[in-house]
Amino acid sequence: MNFNEAEVIRALSSVFATPDVRVLVGIGDDAAVVAPLGNVVVTTDMAVQDVHFRLDWSSAYDIGRKITVANLADIYAMGADPTHLILALSLTGDESMEWILELARGITHEADRVGASVVGGDLARSSNITIAMTALGSVLTPIRRSGASAFEKIYLSSLPGWSAAGLSILQRGANVSTLPPTAKIALEKFRSPLLDVERAHNFRSATSMCDISDSLMTQGEQMAHASQCAFRLDRTLFENHQDFEPLIELASEMSLDVWDWILGGGEDHVFMATGKNLEGLHVGEIEEGIGLHILGMKKAPDTWRHFT
Amino acid sequence: MNFNEAEVIRALSSVFATPDVRVLVGIGDDAAVVAPLGNVVVTTDMAVQDVHFRLDWSSAYDIGRKITVANLADIYAMGADPTHLILALSLTGDESMEWILELARGITHEADRVGASVVGGDLARSSNITIAMTALGSVLTPIRRSGASAFEKIYLSSLPGWSAAGLSILQRGANVSTLPPTAKIALEKFRSPLLDVERAHNFRSATSMCDISDSLMTQGEQMAHASQCAFRLDRTLFENHQDFEPLIELASEMSLDVWDWILGGGEDHVFMATGKNLEGLHVGEIEEGIGLHILGMKKAPDTWRHFT
Repeated sequence: MNFNEAEVIRALSSVFATPDVRVLVGIGDDAAVVAPLGNVVVTTDMAVQDVHFRLDWSSAYDIGRKITVANLADIYAMGADPTHLILALSLTGDESMEWILELARGITHEADRVGASVVGGDLARSSNITIAMTALGSVLTPIRRSGASAFEKIYLSSLPGWSAAGLSILQRGANVSTLPPTAKIALEKFRSPLLDVERAHNFRSATSMCDISDSLMTQGEQMAHASQCAFRLDRTLFENHQDFEPLIELASEMSLDVWDWILGGGEDHVFMATGKNLEGLHVGEIEEGIGLHILGMKKAPDTWRHFT
Repeated sequence: MNFNEAEVIRALSSVFATPDVRVLVGIGDDAAVVAPLGNVVVTTDMAVQDVHFRLDWSSAYDIGRKITVANLADIYAMGADPTHLILALSLTGDESMEWILELARGITHEADRVGASVVGGDLARSSNITIAMTALGSVLTPIRRSGASAFEKIYLSSLPGWSAAGLSILQRGANVSTLPPTAKIALEKFRSPLLDVERAHNFRSATSMCDISDSLMTQGEQMAHASQCAFRLDRTLFENHQDFEPLIELASEMSLDVWDWILGGGEDHVFMATGKNLEGLHVGEIEEGIGLHILGMKKAPDTWRHFT
């Protein structure tokens, strides 16, 4: 490294410095101390170089945004509001200070959007870059995965699949100029997925809620089992979303099955919620029974895995 | 990996399952939800394979204990009580399930000792094992590094240096049977340092406090600057500790300077505290001025770095 640990910490601290009345002790002591509002929600998400991100595919800024959105989405998925972030970061020593600062700025970009602040962290050396972020949030009554009941409806905050589409383009090394213009949107959503805070707030009256970042298939199944009921998704309902047309156009241009992206793709940070009358994309019904069932599905979609 | 992510999570969850009335939502949802007591203290510590631990030097159990102690010590150093742990873990896929479970059992061993519980985490694949742990604690009034004043005394919870001694033995590949019997103690303390909870509680009336796990030199300097005063350590006072004799005997047997271990060694998780009349090893006085000064010191000790 062209600079020592203390210099990196100083530089990061200056990016992360945000006035925050809830922070009693910030960066620079053994630990941070924050004043809680209600119950404390806590989640962690780890992103590993060449598993969750590639330096030739994403900028430091986008990598910072993406790991932050992943953490914040888990907080919102509990019906909670994010308050604070803690960052454990390993660096190889080959990074430039500018790369490190851009990572921090990407984190701050997303944290600022939701009024959260970075209050501490740890820095380590490693053979790869690993970012382990922990997010704290506050909630009075959490929305769990297990709260759904038969005769409720299933909603999504938007159509998932864009991030998986972007990943397909990058994995294939496709020339974006030969693809429909929406290919660029897919790449952007892969690089830094958008956290839909407004929709997360709209879902506060849901009976159950989940960030389906490991794919709708995987986490729909988890919600159905946690709630002990049967989730029946109707694929024709997905087609009502304005994004369906451009996404299926992109998929067919690439000779891929759009349902692998929609049902099997991950990292969009779309919220799935259940209830009687929510604002969002209505995609199915809950019945008595158990598990996830998809109307009109002949084969199970390829479930999303990180790109290795 | 001989098992998939879901199997590892299930196995880890069963080790981490601890009845805890403060946990409203535990492992298995998007995030955990805990009920705070007072203000929330949060710290994170990252341990990287071949930087912070080596598989041929430490068992999975010891590695789990050590990373947990590192996190808990930072909580105690704020005058706080640990409550919850969150674990982000990357695995290479070459680990046996038994190794992973032993890691979890080591974590639980230390967590149980202090009444903390593991409430969540994330699992990733990587080219090396990286353990990023985040600890939460509760405190009413935190003890900061900046609270020391001139005319107070400086105390340690015990004599630091044992972990550095153990590291020296391992780095040198020394035959332990040719060394004094205390060499075994040094190895044990390197592998899983002891968290002195009782002494941490005794230090609750301190004006400032710090876990000097990056070395007494480094963190004494930080405390002195944070508190804007001069810390004067007297080396003859260290000799009053019962561990001084065996430690200097071991150092001279290895032809090493014991002060490199005591002043420059890390990872003992000894607490340094300031005040008028604390129970502990009295090692110096605070005066007006700035910085860390060591009476009778001709050369600066080699400051501790992780073993790469």
